[in-house]
Amino acid sequence: MMEIPKSHPRYESLMRREKLVAGIEAGITSMQGLIAHGRGEAFDYLIGERTMDSALQATEVAAAILCDANKPVLSVNGNVAALASPEMVALSRLIDAPLEVNIFYRTEARVKRIKELLMRSGAKRVFGDMPDARLEGIDHARGLVSHDGIYTADVVLAPLEDGDRCEALIAMGKKVITIDLNPLSRTSRYATVSIVDDVQRALRNIIKIIEDNNLSRNADLDSILANYDNRKILKAAINEIAERLVNLEP
Amino acid sequence: MMEIPKSHPRYESLMRREKLVAGIEAGITSMQGLIAHGRGEAFDYLIGERTMDSALQATEVAAAILCDANKPVLSVNGNVAALASPEMVALSRLIDAPLEVNIFYRTEARVKRIKELLMRSGAKRVFGDMPDARLEGIDHARGLVSHDGIYTADVVLAPLEDGDRCEALIAMGKKVITIDLNPLSRTSRYATVSIVDDVQRALRNIIKIIEDNNLSRNADLDSILANYDNRKILKAAINEIAERLVNLEP
Repeated sequence: MMEIPKSHPRYESLMRREKLVAGIEAGITSMQGLIAHGRGEAFDYLIGERTMDSALQATEVAAAILCDANKPVLSVNGNVAALASPEMVALSRLIDAPLEVNIFYRTEARVKRIKELLMRSGAKRVFGDMPDARLEGIDHARGLVSHDGIYTADVVLAPLEDGDRCEALIAMGKKVITIDLNPLSRTSRYATVSIVDDVQRALRNIIKIIEDNNLSRNADLDSILANYDNRKILKAAINEIAERLVNLEP
Repeated sequence: MMEIPKSHPRYESLMRREKLVAGIEAGITSMQGLIAHGRGEAFDYLIGERTMDSALQATEVAAAILCDANKPVLSVNGNVAALASPEMVALSRLIDAPLEVNIFYRTEARVKRIKELLMRSGAKRVFGDMPDARLEGIDHARGLVSHDGIYTADVVLAPLEDGDRCEALIAMGKKVITIDLNPLSRTSRYATVSIVDDVQRALRNIIKIIEDNNLSRNADLDSILANYDNRKILKAAINEIAERLVNLEP
C-alpha cells in the first residue's frame, strides 16, 4: 500500500482507495468493484465524509433489528471485505451471527480468499463457499447462497448490495439492512433500512450503539418499525446532499 | 468485453465501464483510474447523463479557444485513451494539433501502449514518450512533459486532469480546457474553461461545433473570453445537479 501521512486532510478517503487497490492485488476485489467504490466516493464527498443525522437514525433502527433477529446473517462481498473485514467480524461476534461471502462477480477462488480473510480476522462461522440454495429470479452465479445462511435468515445485513439481489431477498420476506452511500440506488430504495453512510463508519456506529445500549432481543421493535419510514430517511439524505451542494462555492 | 444489448437503458454508461476494464487488461488504464471513473459516473448520473446547457456554453467557448490557438496540444491520460481515443484523434486531425500522452501514474510501458493506441486510431503526432521538460512544482514523474508539446503550448485541452497539474499549467500562462464531470474538482475550479460533461459527449460536441461553424482563427475571441465566467458556469452546473436531486424520488 502507498504511504499516506495521517495528517493528510483526506487520509480516510485515500486509505480506503489504497485498501481496495490492495484488495484487487490480493484477488478479493473486482475491477467493477473499484468503479462502484468511485461512485460511493463521489456521494461521500457530497455528504461531507461524515455520518448524516438521517443516516444515524437508520443506523439505530438497524441495530435494533439486528439484535431482535432470530437468525441474522451478515453478507460480505469483495468491497466490504477489503474495506471493513474487522468491523464485519466484530459485529458478527457481538451478535453471534454468521457471515456469508456473497459476491456479484463470482469466482470460487475469490470466494475462498474472502472467506480466508474473514477467518484470519477472527470470524467463527463463514458461509458462502459451498452454496446449496438459490435466490429466485436471479441468474445462476449471482443467485447462489447457503441454505443455512442467507437462504433461511430472517434478517440480512448486506452492505453495498446489488439492487436485484436486494429485491429478491425482500421478496422472500426477509428484512434487509443495507449500507450504501447512494441514496438513489435501487438497493437503497428496496431495503427495509438503508444506511446512507460509508460502510466502515456505519458498522462502527452499529457496534457502538449495541455495546452502549446493551440492546437485547425484543426491545419494542414493532413500534420502532411502525415509526420508521425508509423513504423519508432517503429523502432527508437527498435533501441534505442538495443543500450542501448549493452552498458549495466552485 | 462483456456483451451489452444496445437496448439496455444504461447502455452508454455500461459500455464506458467495460471499455475501462478492457483498458486495464490492455495495460493503458490504472486501477486508480477506475475509481476516478466511478466518481465521474456518480456525477453523470446526477446530471442525467446528458449535456447540460451550462456545459454546452463552456464547450462553445472551448471550441473557439482551440481554433484560435497558436499551438494547441491535446493531453491524453489512461482513462481518456480508454474512453475516447477516436474522438481525441479526430479533434487532433481537425485542428491540426498534436496529442501528448500525459499520465498520472506514469510507467514508460503504459505511455508506450497509449501512444500505440493513438497511432493505430489514426493520430499523426503524439508526444509524451520522450519527455524533455518539466512542469514546475510537480513531483518528478508527474511533472514530465515534452518541450515541443505541452511545455510550449499556448492552449492545452486536458480532459480528466489532475488538480495540481492543471494549476501548474495555468501558472505557466497557458489556457487550459478541461472536461470533468465533477464541477467541484480542483481541476474544474482552476481551468480556464471547464466542461462539466462526459469526455466522449464533450469531444463530439467540440468537433461538431468546429465543423458546423467552420470556426477559424481569431473570431472575436477576446470578446468571447471577456464575456465568459467559468465560475458562473460551474455554479450553474452545481445548481442544475442540486435541482435535479431534490426532484428525484427515492
